[in-house]
Amino acid sequence: MTSTTPLPSWRPGVTRDRLLAFLDAARSVPTSDRVAYFDNDGTLWCERPTYVQFEFFLDALRRRVADDPSAGERPEFAAVLSGDPAQVGELGLARVALALAGLFVGRAPEEFAAEVRAFMATATHAALGWPMSATVYQPMLELIAELRRLDFTVGVVTGGGTEFVRAVSEDLYGVPAELVVGTLIAYDFERDPSGRPVLRRAGRMLGTANEGPAKVANIQTQLGRRPILAAGNSGGDREMLEWATAADRPSLALLVDHDDAEREYAYTGRAETLTETEPITETASRLSWSVVSIANDWETVFPR
Amino acid sequence: MTSTTPLPSWRPGVTRDRLLAFLDAARSVPTSDRVAYFDNDGTLWCERPTYVQFEFFLDALRRRVADDPSAGERPEFAAVLSGDPAQVGELGLARVALALAGLFVGRAPEEFAAEVRAFMATATHAALGWPMSATVYQPMLELIAELRRLDFTVGVVTGGGTEFVRAVSEDLYGVPAELVVGTLIAYDFERDPSGRPVLRRAGRMLGTANEGPAKVANIQTQLGRRPILAAGNSGGDREMLEWATAADRPSLALLVDHDDAEREYAYTGRAETLTETEPITETASRLSWSVVSIANDWETVFPR
Repeated sequence: MTSTTPLPSWRPGVTRDRLLAFLDAARSVPTSDRVAYFDNDGTLWCERPTYVQFEFFLDALRRRVADDPSAGERPEFAAVLSGDPAQVGELGLARVALALAGLFVGRAPEEFAAEVRAFMATATHAALGWPMSATVYQPMLELIAELRRLDFTVGVVTGGGTEFVRAVSEDLYGVPAELVVGTLIAYDFERDPSGRPVLRRAGRMLGTANEGPAKVANIQTQLGRRPILAAGNSGGDREMLEWATAADRPSLALLVDHDDAEREYAYTGRAETLTETEPITETASRLSWSVVSIANDWETVFPR
Repeated sequence: MTSTTPLPSWRPGVTRDRLLAFLDAARSVPTSDRVAYFDNDGTLWCERPTYVQFEFFLDALRRRVADDPSAGERPEFAAVLSGDPAQVGELGLARVALALAGLFVGRAPEEFAAEVRAFMATATHAALGWPMSATVYQPMLELIAELRRLDFTVGVVTGGGTEFVRAVSEDLYGVPAELVVGTLIAYDFERDPSGRPVLRRAGRMLGTANEGPAKVANIQTQLGRRPILAAGNSGGDREMLEWATAADRPSLALLVDHDDAEREYAYTGRAETLTETEPITETASRLSWSVVSIANDWETVFPR
């Protein structure tokens, strides 16, 4: 392997061959249609044992409860602090997530971003033992770099919080804020005592969680361009991957299969996705998507 | 004036001096904060005697009525076809606009964009007599080019329909779809008879019209970066311009004053803006914004 080999962390094989064939075919696509969107959790970085955003929320919750122990009695917070996923599951992840987002009501956008970055600067992955920022997948970083060499526009389309991901997307992936679409918390427009405008995070969501069909509709309304490459790892990505490949032009759907208990985790998709009608790996097989086996296709998983 | 003079269509004077001073100061701002947003109608291109998007709607309405004369009896459509602004005003522009948008219910995004481009390919400005695409302001194109030379991210934040502007923004301004924020029509996610996903324009708006405080909130939720330059021409741009200049860093608010009846039009702001509490030119004066006098500051108005 020489230094000019593209995608060095991708092992030779069918998946890498299809990726290279797609990249070659994309040269025939007008530049303005060279658009690639990646899911985030489990596609660009590790989502186990818990979502990084959940760790961020948990950290904020612990600080809140240290200040005001009675806050921990709220059922959603008690469930989170119990450390028992079943208790969270019983209340519903959506309800718990909204309660946790409520910890940041009133924050200006810059304040929220600063808190995310402060968390990321010190947080380490519980099992891997290294910084959260190094739980990104090295092969995906190489793919993004290769796409950019071909003048692709690269975005992140996540079920996670838009503003959380925006606070890290430039550093981790070189993706600017406007190319991140996720689950949105509303902002209220207010004025400070001197009359200057300010934005404050509200306690309500805008629209629904950015999962399933919502990912497709939100890509159109917020980004306005249909991808020719979409990558995901769960049922929440199904429609986005179908949509990327349903037009009559070169396209690729990539599904990351977490099958490497030794170097990462072994699991299939997310159980909580409402649209789970067929296991996502079966959809991939039926529609001839490219399934990325972490165990077999990736020579290197993490950048360290 | 040599070919290396920046902003050649801007006449020497206070406005041009402030622009150049801002561009110079912006070099000290981190690249990721070099963000400029422009209103569209009346700021980047001519909005008189009617909005270009209104002409597009009118053209579609005429074709609809030619097919089905009874369609013209709907009050909103009868008001539009009467050619009498007072009749439209009586029903309310928002109601009429939504009725007109309804002419495109069921269209896929690509179909709608193709219709806009087909219209733009042949439409001419009623008074100027040249193509609509040449009713953009040459000095603003030069400013955008200068901003890009300084690695600015340039977006369009419009009260007009997001998808209408996206269909022309790359050609007119080099602004990609994801950097256009406007008034949004919802899309429904559906499947075609073969089961493939499709998006269809719905008959309902997402959120409110993108005017006033909504411009600020929508910039944050859809773009995620605060501008250091904002340009507008009406009360609907007030909060965006205030917000751009309220942070503690180099910034500029540009207000286009339409004061040139000879080469363009002479009018002040839009009467229909709900947030009109103070004439926008008085806000500009109170907050020391840069007011662009078309008559005095622009050597050339249009690119032809």
